[in-house]
Amino acid sequence: MVEGQLEILKQIQWCLEKYGVKPVHVEKFGAAGLFFVFAGPKGVTGTVRIHPEGVVTLTLEYFVCNGLSPLFSTKELQRLRDEVEEKLKASRSRLLPPVQRGLAVDPYLTTSDERLLQYDFDVKLFEERTPYQKVMIVHSPSLGNALILDDLINLAESDGIYTDTLMLKGRISYKGKTCLILGGGDGALLHQLLQEDPDYITMVEIDEVVMQACSKHMRSVCGDSMDSHKGLHHEIIVGDAVATMEEYVKEGRRFDFVFGDLTDIPISTDPTAELWLFFRRILTLALSLLAPSGIYLSHANGVSSHKALSMFEEQLGAIDPPVKFSKCSAYVPSFMEPWVFYQVWYKHSPPVVLPDTLQSSLLS
Amino acid sequence: MVEGQLEILKQIQWCLEKYGVKPVHVEKFGAAGLFFVFAGPKGVTGTVRIHPEGVVTLTLEYFVCNGLSPLFSTKELQRLRDEVEEKLKASRSRLLPPVQRGLAVDPYLTTSDERLLQYDFDVKLFEERTPYQKVMIVHSPSLGNALILDDLINLAESDGIYTDTLMLKGRISYKGKTCLILGGGDGALLHQLLQEDPDYITMVEIDEVVMQACSKHMRSVCGDSMDSHKGLHHEIIVGDAVATMEEYVKEGRRFDFVFGDLTDIPISTDPTAELWLFFRRILTLALSLLAPSGIYLSHANGVSSHKALSMFEEQLGAIDPPVKFSKCSAYVPSFMEPWVFYQVWYKHSPPVVLPDTLQSSLLS
Repeated sequence: MVEGQLEILKQIQWCLEKYGVKPVHVEKFGAAGLFFVFAGPKGVTGTVRIHPEGVVTLTLEYFVCNGLSPLFSTKELQRLRDEVEEKLKASRSRLLPPVQRGLAVDPYLTTSDERLLQYDFDVKLFEERTPYQKVMIVHSPSLGNALILDDLINLAESDGIYTDTLMLKGRISYKGKTCLILGGGDGALLHQLLQEDPDYITMVEIDEVVMQACSKHMRSVCGDSMDSHKGLHHEIIVGDAVATMEEYVKEGRRFDFVFGDLTDIPISTDPTAELWLFFRRILTLALSLLAPSGIYLSHANGVSSHKALSMFEEQLGAIDPPVKFSKCSAYVPSFMEPWVFYQVWYKHSPPVVLPDTLQSSLLS
Repeated sequence: MVEGQLEILKQIQWCLEKYGVKPVHVEKFGAAGLFFVFAGPKGVTGTVRIHPEGVVTLTLEYFVCNGLSPLFSTKELQRLRDEVEEKLKASRSRLLPPVQRGLAVDPYLTTSDERLLQYDFDVKLFEERTPYQKVMIVHSPSLGNALILDDLINLAESDGIYTDTLMLKGRISYKGKTCLILGGGDGALLHQLLQEDPDYITMVEIDEVVMQACSKHMRSVCGDSMDSHKGLHHEIIVGDAVATMEEYVKEGRRFDFVFGDLTDIPISTDPTAELWLFFRRILTLALSLLAPSGIYLSHANGVSSHKALSMFEEQLGAIDPPVKFSKCSAYVPSFMEPWVFYQVWYKHSPPVVLPDTLQSSLLS
């Protein structure tokens, strides 16, 4: 087997030589194959791993300052790939674009199911570590400004569809209604609800820094809705949503609509039991604040995160008194995946007029 | 300097040791820093590159069969990252999800500006190398089935917006009109135009395999429009668009609308002069087939591909007799980026009724 692997090495070596990249070390792993180290000019290192299962990987690494040309052009790399594929008589091969590490504006984020996405962020507009999270606003030429909390994209200027779907804009009337927003620090939901002639909107957001940053850098999203904490038809409470809800429950407050727009809803694909207990606590509190025929509207997770979504629905099934729910999804541009939104109400007190979407997507 | 680098190595070594991963080789690059090779159980290799500019990279590589658990869980990797960041007193660090190489269904594609995107493709439904291209249809749980030609995503079942924007659906009336589609082998445009009560649609697609594969696997997109090559209101010509257009020009044929939906429009960020000359040839032919007040409608490129888009407009500026154009863009879910579409007409023969969007986005 080693001989076959050395032959593979010889072919790759032949391909790399014209770039001045030469083998300098070999590491033998017995049954796990061979690992070769290459080195070339300008500090280029290469590694070739020959996995006995039939996969050969070639990785080049080098440093260039941001903005300077890469040491290998795309065309050179394509030629190298083609040559290696031909020399090895490989059935298929794949050239991946350079993974860029150490950039001042990191371009990589992940989907809800941990797939790698490279964004076109070019400028960091805001960054601050608050007691609650790392708050960042970056600019993307294709998506506009984007709010990123703890390396998760929360909302970009391209994402009107997120708020439209969360509030079922045009399908639910908010005229003269009372609303409670849990979270929503980007101000998009508050801004959109204020256009609908509501009676009063209360928003509880824990992180003042998020609101200030969005008021400055995401103005196309939040308008002037967060310029002051109190307006004719709205109030922003800077505080903990759970504590505020507990207080409201004691006071007997009720809202026609409660919105779940918290950032700390368990979006990991591997959420802990405690996180879900915490989530159910929020859910129970939110539902207990609903006026008769009220609706709880919440975002949930990416459509691909089946486990998290079924956990979400499991929690809904455990609520007492029992609830009914409907759901819908919309592709959110900056998330680069479709996102799922839920509408929840008490079985014993359904919405007076169920909007079409709630009826048609009724699940329980 | 080397001493400081060895101290960095010592710290990383300490962090890796609990996973049984130990240093086995060092490569010195002088001014370009140090490169360390680690090895661990189950054929894990690690490389640590200490770039004197201040970036330290740690890369782990190992083989597992598809479907088996990774050797390191996300939580373990996060802990390792945190430890390394703390030990090195790094100002920031980034953990990227595993780059998966050698999978039967490759999950990686790129945006038009060569950014890396990881899709959730799970099943390969179709693959064939034709004389023209590599045709592949894969399934994505979040996007539906997707047509991929030569590693470029052409259309997915999620992408109704692509066709709607290409034809300005609802903003241009096709009733009683004649249309020529260049390319369009996925059948989406043909299917949508047939819903608009047109007089006659001619489609020229070179690759029969694409049409057959889409008729089978992308039926939500093309309906039954490609089940036969001739219908009451349409005809599909399997052939070269340029040759067919040249023939039509000789015959004096004219169409109310010509659509550019070819896959070989230069979408590379580094297109050659010949490609652009070819593109201008297509454009000139297409425009010469327009009936008086006709419109040429074409997709172009991602909004981030500034160079390709300005080349596109440069070609439009070189057309004689002179043309006017408008453009619009739409975020196409499976492209994971907004795409730009153009509408072009002769200056001396503008559309009789300019749809709103054409007027409002008029550029020249």
